[in-house]
Amino acid sequence: MKKTIRVLQWGLGAMGSGMARLTLEKPGLEIVAAIDSFPEYVGKDLGQVLGVGKDLGVIVTDQPETVLDRDKVDIVIIATTSWVAHQMPDLRKIINAGINVISIAEEMSDAEAQNPELAQELDQLAKQQGVTVLGTGVNPGYVLDLLVIALTGGCHSVDRIEASRVNDLSPYGPTVMETQGVGTTPEVFRQGVADGTIVGHVGFPESIRMISEALGLGVDRIEEHREPIVSNVFRETPHVKVEPGMVAGCAHTGIGYRGDKEVIRLIHPQQIHPQLEDQDTGDYIHIYGVPEIDMAIKPEIAGGIATMGIAVNMVPHVVAASPGLKRMIDLPIPAALMGESAYHRRI
Amino acid sequence: MKKTIRVLQWGLGAMGSGMARLTLEKPGLEIVAAIDSFPEYVGKDLGQVLGVGKDLGVIVTDQPETVLDRDKVDIVIIATTSWVAHQMPDLRKIINAGINVISIAEEMSDAEAQNPELAQELDQLAKQQGVTVLGTGVNPGYVLDLLVIALTGGCHSVDRIEASRVNDLSPYGPTVMETQGVGTTPEVFRQGVADGTIVGHVGFPESIRMISEALGLGVDRIEEHREPIVSNVFRETPHVKVEPGMVAGCAHTGIGYRGDKEVIRLIHPQQIHPQLEDQDTGDYIHIYGVPEIDMAIKPEIAGGIATMGIAVNMVPHVVAASPGLKRMIDLPIPAALMGESAYHRRI
Repeated sequence: MKKTIRVLQWGLGAMGSGMARLTLEKPGLEIVAAIDSFPEYVGKDLGQVLGVGKDLGVIVTDQPETVLDRDKVDIVIIATTSWVAHQMPDLRKIINAGINVISIAEEMSDAEAQNPELAQELDQLAKQQGVTVLGTGVNPGYVLDLLVIALTGGCHSVDRIEASRVNDLSPYGPTVMETQGVGTTPEVFRQGVADGTIVGHVGFPESIRMISEALGLGVDRIEEHREPIVSNVFRETPHVKVEPGMVAGCAHTGIGYRGDKEVIRLIHPQQIHPQLEDQDTGDYIHIYGVPEIDMAIKPEIAGGIATMGIAVNMVPHVVAASPGLKRMIDLPIPAALMGESAYHRRI
Repeated sequence: MKKTIRVLQWGLGAMGSGMARLTLEKPGLEIVAAIDSFPEYVGKDLGQVLGVGKDLGVIVTDQPETVLDRDKVDIVIIATTSWVAHQMPDLRKIINAGINVISIAEEMSDAEAQNPELAQELDQLAKQQGVTVLGTGVNPGYVLDLLVIALTGGCHSVDRIEASRVNDLSPYGPTVMETQGVGTTPEVFRQGVADGTIVGHVGFPESIRMISEALGLGVDRIEEHREPIVSNVFRETPHVKVEPGMVAGCAHTGIGYRGDKEVIRLIHPQQIHPQLEDQDTGDYIHIYGVPEIDMAIKPEIAGGIATMGIAVNMVPHVVAASPGLKRMIDLPIPAALMGESAYHRRI
C-alpha cells in the first residue's frame, strides 16, 4: 500500500457498527475515530462497543469537532439517517473540516434528485475544500441503478428497462415491519401510505434519475406506487403474524416517464417469507433494447451486508477522486477490497 | 449537448463498419473521417461503404496522416487487430497527433498483462500529448471482467471467482471455424493448439489481471487450457459439418492463481449449436465469498453487437477522462448512449 487510509466512523447503529468491524479487517484501512451520540457508547473504547474482544485505542465521542481533524482523518463514513436534509449539518462539518465523506443516506445516492439546492451546496463546498462526497448503498446506489446501467454498456439502443428486487424481510425487527405495513390489514396499509407512516422503499427517485442521467433517457416525470402484498397463506416471524388476507409486505414501484412513455420501471416488493407463495428472492434486470438482456441474481444480493460492503469498498475510490459531490455513476466500478488494489495504488 | 464529438473510424471490417453505422445514429457524435486500406473502399464515400443509402461527405482514405488532425478529430475508434504489438505503429500515430483513441484489440483491454513495455510507452506518450487511450470490447473488457468485478462491489470478502460465457459460433464464417477448431478431429485439434493455429479465446490474461488488480487478489500466475468440445450429435452450419465424435468447438479456460490457490477461473466454451446438447447459452458469474453471489444472463450478451456498442458508448467517457492509458476499471461504468447523458455533459 502506498498509504494507510484513516477512517472515522460516524454512527454506530446496525450499519455503522458493521462497517466499522469490516473496516478493521481491511488491508490498507485503519479506524482512527468514532462518533455516536448514544449515551451507552460515549466514552467507551470502540472495541468494546463493536464487541471485537479487545480495545482499539479509539474512544467513541459525541463531540464531532474534537475528532474532525484533516491531519488525522482521511475519510468519514456516515450512517445516521436516510435523508439529505437531516444529514446536512453533519456533512457541512465534515466538509468544512476538509475531509472526504461517504454517506449511506439513501437520498445521498443522487442528492440532486430530491434536494437540488442542498446538492449544489455540497458540491460547491466540496470543491472549495478539495474533498470528495459520495452517497452509496446497496439500493439505491448499486442493485437497481448501477448494475442496471452497467448491463446497458454494450447496447446499441435501450427502449425501456424493468428491474425488480425481491427480498425477504423476515430477519428484520418491529420498526421495519411497521414502516412496510407487515401484519396490517389492506385498509390500514392504505391509510398508512396516505399518512406517511408506511414508507416502503427509500430511493426510487434517486435510482431512476441516475439511470436516466447515465443513459440520457430524458426522464421528466417519476411516479411511485405502494400496494399491499396481501398474503394467501399464514406467514410468521418472531415479531409479527400474518393471517391469510392480511398484509405480508409492501409492493413498491417507481416508474420513470419521458413524456407519456414509460422508460424505467423499478419494482421492490418487500415482504416476509415470499417463498411461502413460491416467489424466489432475487435481483432481476431486463433491458428491452438491442440487444435484449435478461439478468437474474438468485438469491438477491444481501441488503444489509452489501450496504456495509459497498461503503467500505468505495473508500479508496473516494480518496483518489477529484473534488466535488459524486454518485456511483461518476466513479470507477466498486470492487471488493481484498488486498493492494489498483484503486488503492492511485492514492 | 455541450459539444458534438468528432469521431474518426479506423478499420471498416465487420466490427469497424458496424461501429461506424452505430456512431451515425448517436446523438452528440459525428463521423468526420474514416481510414481503411482495402482497395475497394479507398476513395469511396463512407456512406457507400457502409451501405446506408446516402453519401456522408466522408471519403475513406488509406493515408492516416491526411486525416489525423486534432483540430478536426476528437477521438479515433480503431478496429484493426487483436494484438497490441501489431497496433502500436497506428496507436503512436494517433497519440502523437494529439487525439484520444478507443481500441477494440483484445490485448489492449489491459495492455500491461502481456505487453508491459508497450503499455508503459502508450501511457507516457498519452500523458505527454494530453490524450486518453482505452481498450474495450465485450470480452475482454466487459462480461468476464468488468461485470465480474462490479458484482463483488458489495462483498465483504471474496474467496474465489468462477465465471463462464457459453456462446454459439454458428453465425460465424470459415475463419472462426478454423481458429476454434470446429469440424476437426480431437487429434487435429490438439495439434492445432500445439502449433498455434487453433487459438480459442483471446483475452484471458487481460481479464484475469483486471479482476486481480481491481480487487487486490494478488494473482501471480495464469494458466490457460484449450480442450476440444467433442460432439455427441450431428451439428451443422453453412460452413461446417460436425459428425458425432468430431470437434464442435474449443473449451477455453483461464485460471488465475495466488501461490497455489486458484482464485479466478474463467471459462469460455465456444462451439456451434450448444443447445443441441442441452446447453443454454449465457453469461454466468459466481462469486464465492461473503455474500455469495450467483448471476445468470440468458442468453449471453451478444458478442459482436456488444463490442460495437461498448466501444461507441465509451466515447464520451474517454473524451472526458484524464490523460493516459486506461482500462474499463479506471473509468465510470459504461452506459448505452441514448441522449444527453451526464457523461456527455462533462465534456
